[in-house]
Amino acid sequence: MKTIKDLLSEVEHIFKEEQFVFEPKELYEPIDYTLRLGGKKIRPTLLLAANQLFDGDPDLVRDAALGIETFHNFTLLHDDLMDRSPIRRGQPTVYCKWNENTAILSGDTMFALAWRYFLRKPTPNLHQILQCFDQTAIEVCEGQQYDMNFEKKALNDVSLSEYMEMIRQKTAVLLAAALKIGALYANASEEDVDKIYNFGIHLGLAFQIQDDLLDGYGDTAVFGKKTGQDIRDNKKSYLPLCALKICNQIQAQKLCTLFDYNNRIDEEEKVACTLSLYEEIGLRRHVEEAIKQQFIQAQQELDNIEANPTSKKPFQELMEMLFERKK
Amino acid sequence: MKTIKDLLSEVEHIFKEEQFVFEPKELYEPIDYTLRLGGKKIRPTLLLAANQLFDGDPDLVRDAALGIETFHNFTLLHDDLMDRSPIRRGQPTVYCKWNENTAILSGDTMFALAWRYFLRKPTPNLHQILQCFDQTAIEVCEGQQYDMNFEKKALNDVSLSEYMEMIRQKTAVLLAAALKIGALYANASEEDVDKIYNFGIHLGLAFQIQDDLLDGYGDTAVFGKKTGQDIRDNKKSYLPLCALKICNQIQAQKLCTLFDYNNRIDEEEKVACTLSLYEEIGLRRHVEEAIKQQFIQAQQELDNIEANPTSKKPFQELMEMLFERKK
Repeated sequence: MKTIKDLLSEVEHIFKEEQFVFEPKELYEPIDYTLRLGGKKIRPTLLLAANQLFDGDPDLVRDAALGIETFHNFTLLHDDLMDRSPIRRGQPTVYCKWNENTAILSGDTMFALAWRYFLRKPTPNLHQILQCFDQTAIEVCEGQQYDMNFEKKALNDVSLSEYMEMIRQKTAVLLAAALKIGALYANASEEDVDKIYNFGIHLGLAFQIQDDLLDGYGDTAVFGKKTGQDIRDNKKSYLPLCALKICNQIQAQKLCTLFDYNNRIDEEEKVACTLSLYEEIGLRRHVEEAIKQQFIQAQQELDNIEANPTSKKPFQELMEMLFERKK
Repeated sequence: MKTIKDLLSEVEHIFKEEQFVFEPKELYEPIDYTLRLGGKKIRPTLLLAANQLFDGDPDLVRDAALGIETFHNFTLLHDDLMDRSPIRRGQPTVYCKWNENTAILSGDTMFALAWRYFLRKPTPNLHQILQCFDQTAIEVCEGQQYDMNFEKKALNDVSLSEYMEMIRQKTAVLLAAALKIGALYANASEEDVDKIYNFGIHLGLAFQIQDDLLDGYGDTAVFGKKTGQDIRDNKKSYLPLCALKICNQIQAQKLCTLFDYNNRIDEEEKVACTLSLYEEIGLRRHVEEAIKQQFIQAQQELDNIEANPTSKKPFQELMEMLFERKK
C-alpha cells in the first residue's frame, strides 16, 4: 500500500518522464514552463489514490494523471489571463512572460493535450471516463463565469448558497472528478464511484472555504500571501458572505459599504475595518465550523466505501496535510 | 441518395433543433450567437456526405456534425480575438460585441461542448474517432501558431513548402478529419478512411490557395472582401511566396521591400505595385495551376474509393460549388 507521500512522488516522477516540448517551440515552451512550475499536483495524486483504493492497475492510470493535471493547468493559464494575475507559484504567468495570444493558444493546446493523454490507450469504460472529464470541464468553465459575474455584483447581491455552488463548480468538481476517474479505471462499483466523488466535493469545498479563511486570518509567513488580499479585491468570498448572514443590520450596512467599489476608502483601513467587524461578530468560529462540517461529510463518504481501511489511509494523510497549512 | 443541397439543409436543421443557451447566460449567449451566425457549415456537411458514401446510419452522426462545427467555431472565436478581427460573417466578433474575457471563456466552453456532442452516445470505434478529433485539434493549434510566427518573419524567410504545411494544419486537416470521422462512423475500411482523409487534405489546400488567389484577383462584389487585403496586411500567402519562387532577383528584391513592415509606402500604392509585379511574372497562371493540381489529386483519391459512383456525386457537387465563387 502506497502512502500519500509515495503517490505524490510517483506523480512527480510521471511528470519528470514526460516530454512537453515539440514543434513549434513558441507553442510548446509555455506549456512546458507551466507544467514544470511545480504546484502540489493534488488532482493526479487523488486519481492514483482512488485507483489504489479500488485495487486498480497503477500502470493504466499514469496517462489519466497527466491528463487531469494538464487540464487543471490549462484552466489556471486562462484564468490568470482573464484575472490579469502576474504571478503564479512565485513565477510570472504565461501572459506576462510571453503575451496574451501565447496564453490563449498554448492554453487551448493544453486542453487538447489533456484529451490526448486520456486517449493514449483504449480502456473498457473510456466513454464513461471521458463523459465525466468533459462534464467537469464544462462545469469548471461555468464556475469561472459565475465567479466573474460575482465580481460585478454588490456584496448583498450574492448569497452564500450561490457562492457555495460557484466554488463547487470552480474548485470541487475537478477534485471529485479526479477521484471518480481513478475509481472508474479500477472498475469500482457505481455506489463506490458516487461516494468517492462526493468525498471529493466535500473535500474541495472544505479546502476552498479554508483558503478563504486563511486570507483573513492566515500567517503571511506560512500562507505565503498577504493577509486581507480578498478584502482589498472586494472579493465576495465565504468570509463576507457568511458575515452578512450572521451580523445585524447596522453591521451589514457597514460591511456592504466596505465592499462597495465606489467607496474610495484607504485599502489598509478597509482591511482593518473589515477584520475588526469579523472579530466583533465572531466570524472565525462560524467559518471554522463550516469547514468542519464539510470535513465530517467527506469523512462519512469515505467511511461508507467498502474497502480495506488501510487503503483509505492516504486520504486521511492527505486531509491532514492539506489542513496543516493553517493559521 | 441525398444531394449536397439535401445534406447542407440537413445540417441547418440539426443546428436549428439544438439548444445552445443554458445558465449562466453570460457564458452561453456568445456561444449561441456564434453558432447561429451562419457560415457555410462545410465541415459537418462533409461529415454527413462521407457517412452516406460508406452507407452509415445518418442518425448516428448528427452529434458528430454538431461537434465538428462547434469545434470549428471555437477556433474562429479565439482566432478572431488573437488577430483582433472585428467582423466575422458580416457581424461583430464576440470579443468586440462582448469583451476579451468572454471570448476566452466562451471559446473554452465551446471546445468542451464539441467533446460533449461526440460523447453523447457510445459507439464501437469511439476511441479511434476521438483520437482523430483530438489529433486534429492539436494540429489546428500548431497551424495557428505557425501562422502567427510567419507574421513576424520577412517574406523571404518563409518558404512555399512551410506555407503549405501551415495551411495543411490550419485549414486542411479539419476538413479531412470531418470526412474521416463520417467514414469511421460508417465502419469504412482502413484504406477508404485514408483515401477520404487525403481527399479532404487536397480539397482543403485547393480551397485555401483559391482563397489566397481571390484576395489578389477576386471581384469584390462576388467575393465580399476588398481586393488586396492580404497585401495591405503583409500576409505571406500563397501569392507572394509563389511569386518569389518564379521571379528574377531584381523582382524578388522589389517584392521583399513591398512586404517589409518597415517600408512606409502608401497602402494603395503598395497593392498596385504588388499586383503589377504579379502581372509581370504571370503569377495568376501559376497559382491556378497549383489549385488544379490539388484538385486532380483530390479527384484521384475520390476515384480510388470503392463505392457506388452515385454516392460520390455530392462531393463533385460540393467541389463545383466551392470553386464557383471565382474571379
